[in-house]
Amino acid sequence: MSIAVRHLDTSSATFDADFQRVLHWSAETDAEIESRVADILADVKARGDAAVLAYTARFDRLDAPCMAALELTRDELKAAFDAITPAQRHALETAAARVRSYHERQLQACGLSWSYRDADGTLLGQKVTPLDRVGIYVPGGKAAYPSSVLMNALPAHVAGVGEIIMVVPTPGGERNALVLAAAYVAGVSRAFTIGGAQAVGALAFGTASIPRVDKITGPGNAYVASAKRRVFGQVGIDMIAGPSEILVLADGSTPPDWVAMDLFSQAEHDELAQSILLCPDAAYIDAVQAAMDRLIGAMPRRNVIRASLEGRGALIRTRSMEEACEISNRIAPEHLEVSSADPHRWEPLLRHAGAIFLGAYTSESLGDYCAGPNHVLPTSGTARFSSPLGVYDFQKRSSLIEVSEAGAQVLGPIAAELAYGEGLQAHAQAAEFRLRR
Amino acid sequence: MSIAVRHLDTSSATFDADFQRVLHWSAETDAEIESRVADILADVKARGDAAVLAYTARFDRLDAPCMAALELTRDELKAAFDAITPAQRHALETAAARVRSYHERQLQACGLSWSYRDADGTLLGQKVTPLDRVGIYVPGGKAAYPSSVLMNALPAHVAGVGEIIMVVPTPGGERNALVLAAAYVAGVSRAFTIGGAQAVGALAFGTASIPRVDKITGPGNAYVASAKRRVFGQVGIDMIAGPSEILVLADGSTPPDWVAMDLFSQAEHDELAQSILLCPDAAYIDAVQAAMDRLIGAMPRRNVIRASLEGRGALIRTRSMEEACEISNRIAPEHLEVSSADPHRWEPLLRHAGAIFLGAYTSESLGDYCAGPNHVLPTSGTARFSSPLGVYDFQKRSSLIEVSEAGAQVLGPIAAELAYGEGLQAHAQAAEFRLRR
Repeated sequence: MSIAVRHLDTSSATFDADFQRVLHWSAETDAEIESRVADILADVKARGDAAVLAYTARFDRLDAPCMAALELTRDELKAAFDAITPAQRHALETAAARVRSYHERQLQACGLSWSYRDADGTLLGQKVTPLDRVGIYVPGGKAAYPSSVLMNALPAHVAGVGEIIMVVPTPGGERNALVLAAAYVAGVSRAFTIGGAQAVGALAFGTASIPRVDKITGPGNAYVASAKRRVFGQVGIDMIAGPSEILVLADGSTPPDWVAMDLFSQAEHDELAQSILLCPDAAYIDAVQAAMDRLIGAMPRRNVIRASLEGRGALIRTRSMEEACEISNRIAPEHLEVSSADPHRWEPLLRHAGAIFLGAYTSESLGDYCAGPNHVLPTSGTARFSSPLGVYDFQKRSSLIEVSEAGAQVLGPIAAELAYGEGLQAHAQAAEFRLRR
Repeated sequence: MSIAVRHLDTSSATFDADFQRVLHWSAETDAEIESRVADILADVKARGDAAVLAYTARFDRLDAPCMAALELTRDELKAAFDAITPAQRHALETAAARVRSYHERQLQACGLSWSYRDADGTLLGQKVTPLDRVGIYVPGGKAAYPSSVLMNALPAHVAGVGEIIMVVPTPGGERNALVLAAAYVAGVSRAFTIGGAQAVGALAFGTASIPRVDKITGPGNAYVASAKRRVFGQVGIDMIAGPSEILVLADGSTPPDWVAMDLFSQAEHDELAQSILLCPDAAYIDAVQAAMDRLIGAMPRRNVIRASLEGRGALIRTRSMEEACEISNRIAPEHLEVSSADPHRWEPLLRHAGAIFLGAYTSESLGDYCAGPNHVLPTSGTARFSSPLGVYDFQKRSSLIEVSEAGAQVLGPIAAELAYGEGLQAHAQAAEFRLRR
């Protein structure tokens, strides 16, 4: 049965309205979840380990006598690494090396301290330092992704973070060997088999057994997202992620099967994931539809793929590649494939995207796992104002100012004038005290 | 009457408990404010301009027939600039030039795109682009600071933001000439005399008259803070600021009057502002106390200063400068003065601070107005994980990946191995399709 994905045409009179309906997605906040999360956080803040143990027993069916029983030792992580196949070990280590190498470049490009002196001898600059301690949330159950362990822990490592605490729920005690192996490869400092709002609370407030962190990163379900939003300010957080999306901008030169599979690879994440194709060539769009119809039957996750494509997908014919770029900017997609024979012609027109994949050989999945850049990317149009997870998320900056005696004579009168204008006389006099009498 | 500021000593048995009490500050969220803000935002989303006009009439006593009547024209901003004194004009322009120059250095140091090719010919990098449009919230009334207009608008300008929309409430129609003049000097694109949660909503959602922005920066009262927190995700926000703080780390070599006035300059902001002195020299602490007692009488804002110092201030004797640095790291202060004859000896020990002011001549007030670095800084210990407002807040990054045909042969099997391990077969096949058969 053909996949009933929406076909739109930008030259249609109803395009704008149809397109708005495709894009519409709203993160409904569930009042009951909000209130339960508030209670859990308050309880963890008040009772610490005892509360975490109680919620872990209740939600994860994991009865532990003490927090130490929920800590994964370095030996346990190594045992998991030793137990996976040699091909898996090689893949994890190669991916880790490439991700580390990319983030080291990122550190060099935009993560170093800098300073200069002006003509008066005043030193100005910024000191860049790593966070002391961070927490990484790794989901358990069906969405347990070892690649996410690498993508969260390695930038923190490269930034120089002193201590990386991983939490990963293991419902019913079931551990994911690949996730534990990834934690070993990524070199997390400590790991606990806890999850949900109680794990977020433990990391944000600290307990007797779990040290308080400065920032929490990593994806999670609605409870985790709500808890992260609530502790924001107390600690830093990365972002609240929505469903994953891909936008393929095609000029018709890539084999249609490849593009069909790229659209599937986003759709297979979950029913709410979004796959959109923009292309000026109607015959090519038909060829991609035909490829999808031919390929879907063999996909183990075909039910999820079909539900996602039929519910939220779209194949959109545009008047031109230029118009396709303009529409892409309106979407600000998480993943943007420029499946063109001449991708560098279009890249300068693309202003908003989490990651841009250039050319036919750059499938999103290569970027997801091992090209090097981070796969934690801004979703739901937030690429208009936010960035991939990176080394910079695990650093912070402090301004450096050293005014020379000569500089104080120049700056003092200016500061005093503005301070008096704002009615802040102590500010003014603090500047004036430094003037030579 | 002597200022009854707390004196603490790190060698006292009760120091840790006393110190915790000094630091304690909690941003109580007021349920009534939360609920009123939620209603206002929903109303602005639903009714747009009409709602904004209604709330402006009600809260700011400003009856306008239409939004156009609440827009400040470029001519009005210029008229304000022409009307202030020549000394004020000179001070604003000099400060603006220095702030611009510093942020241009920041752009060069950490805000440029970068890329490289690996051995397989795969291109990896990051494209850095400015936000399209940002909103700047400027408080009205008693805390109307022209310097904040410069500190928010100029980094956005340097980043290359296309459009900067300023909102500033003018209760009863009363306009602050220096704020309008600063908006002229900073070159904001458009300005509206609206404020409160309704202004935040208008910027976040857009109305018929006010364009939707990508990010909202700038300080505000509890309503503004609550509204910013609520629209976060829909748009970016800078931070939710707490009360302002200064920490002075003194070795006793700076004239005590200077340090006393620096402590006053923070305390004069409001009763909740916090001024703390750390010093190993008991005689010097006494000299600073004596200087404060002598100077307070002449300060126009002496009531605020006294309330702040007696409520939240502290003079702390430490065993050594090293211990003072360690305590400073526990506080992670917004402003940190290293008032020492040898500030570069201590700076490397200081890990967490919004801005570090080195040496006796570097009063915080010089940095507040015109040294160059931004005065919007992380408060309440959030310098553990966040940074001064900067050019980077008005940019976002997109990963760039272009895998060569040769690169796809290397990366494909690794990605496929990991994807199969995660149960994501479409991801695996998308990589395998790119392998030579």
